[in-house]
Amino acid sequence: MMSRSQPAVHPLEVPPLTDAAENAVPMRVRMKDIQGMPGTPAGLALRVCQFVFAAVSLCVMATTNDFPSVTAFRYLIAAVILQSLWSLSLAIVDVYALLVKRCLRNSRVISLFTMGDGITSTLTFAAACASAGITVLIGNDFNNCAQNHCTRFETATAMAFMSWFAVSPSFFLNFWSLASR
Amino acid sequence: MMSRSQPAVHPLEVPPLTDAAENAVPMRVRMKDIQGMPGTPAGLALRVCQFVFAAVSLCVMATTNDFPSVTAFRYLIAAVILQSLWSLSLAIVDVYALLVKRCLRNSRVISLFTMGDGITSTLTFAAACASAGITVLIGNDFNNCAQNHCTRFETATAMAFMSWFAVSPSFFLNFWSLASR
Repeated sequence: MMSRSQPAVHPLEVPPLTDAAENAVPMRVRMKDIQGMPGTPAGLALRVCQFVFAAVSLCVMATTNDFPSVTAFRYLIAAVILQSLWSLSLAIVDVYALLVKRCLRNSRVISLFTMGDGITSTLTFAAACASAGITVLIGNDFNNCAQNHCTRFETATAMAFMSWFAVSPSFFLNFWSLASR
Repeated sequence: MMSRSQPAVHPLEVPPLTDAAENAVPMRVRMKDIQGMPGTPAGLALRVCQFVFAAVSLCVMATTNDFPSVTAFRYLIAAVILQSLWSLSLAIVDVYALLVKRCLRNSRVISLFTMGDGITSTLTFAAACASAGITVLIGNDFNNCAQNHCTRFETATAMAFMSWFAVSPSFFLNFWSLASR
């Protein structure tokens, strides 16, 4: 209280440049705490969704015995394995951050998360699209669903798409907070 | 003594606040003029690249006589038509903006461009991935390139991917400038 009335002495000693530099740091570090970002409950829920959808896609595709004969299905397996590992590890990080109330608003951490989200979501989306193209080819164009596990292929593809849908908000929120910091 | 020693600490905190408030306003309003954004020569070059790649992909795919038998190839045709129309219209907007030296840094315009870029790039990428899956299926898994136009399918797919590569910088630059305005 008293201090507010007497600031006239010291600012004369402090050069304005250092003042500005000292101010710039807290302004830059501060990031808005939007739900869905890393370290928030909604962010953890997103990560869990991503992991569950990717894991279900992996399991459903792996139970078909003829997936190794199609390159795109093998690629889908690889992509959802990567996606589930990434989402699981970030979910663990989120749980840790929530438990110890640690803030994950570090700029380096956010840019790392953004890159990882961007890469895994692109790979998952590409794999899902390739699988969807082949599933539609088998089902609609060849009318050959009797000999193939069309339902399982479709389920695995749909789950991969759902996983991609769940990654997108994480990616865009991280990218947004990276750009607006 | 205590009352004399305390002001030494606090004045360092107080003046920064007004400093920061004054600095924050011009920082927020100003948008950086990054090359590649709408209304810049690099942005126009990106649009032209997108249009050319999408148009080449369309032409190559349309010259194969059996593309209508595969759903993914028909979808590729539709996606690259949409992409080429979108890129051509934005290229025209860019030419206009460059000719009349008009600035396209309006927030509404940028968000419209971002949405359009996001939608068309997602569609183009999905179509390219589906086509790539089927092309690989025909070429590697069935070893049936003799009866099919594998080279043309591959060229059309590659051109669609190139078009997507050219859209991505536009999208991310627009999204970044939207977030950091």
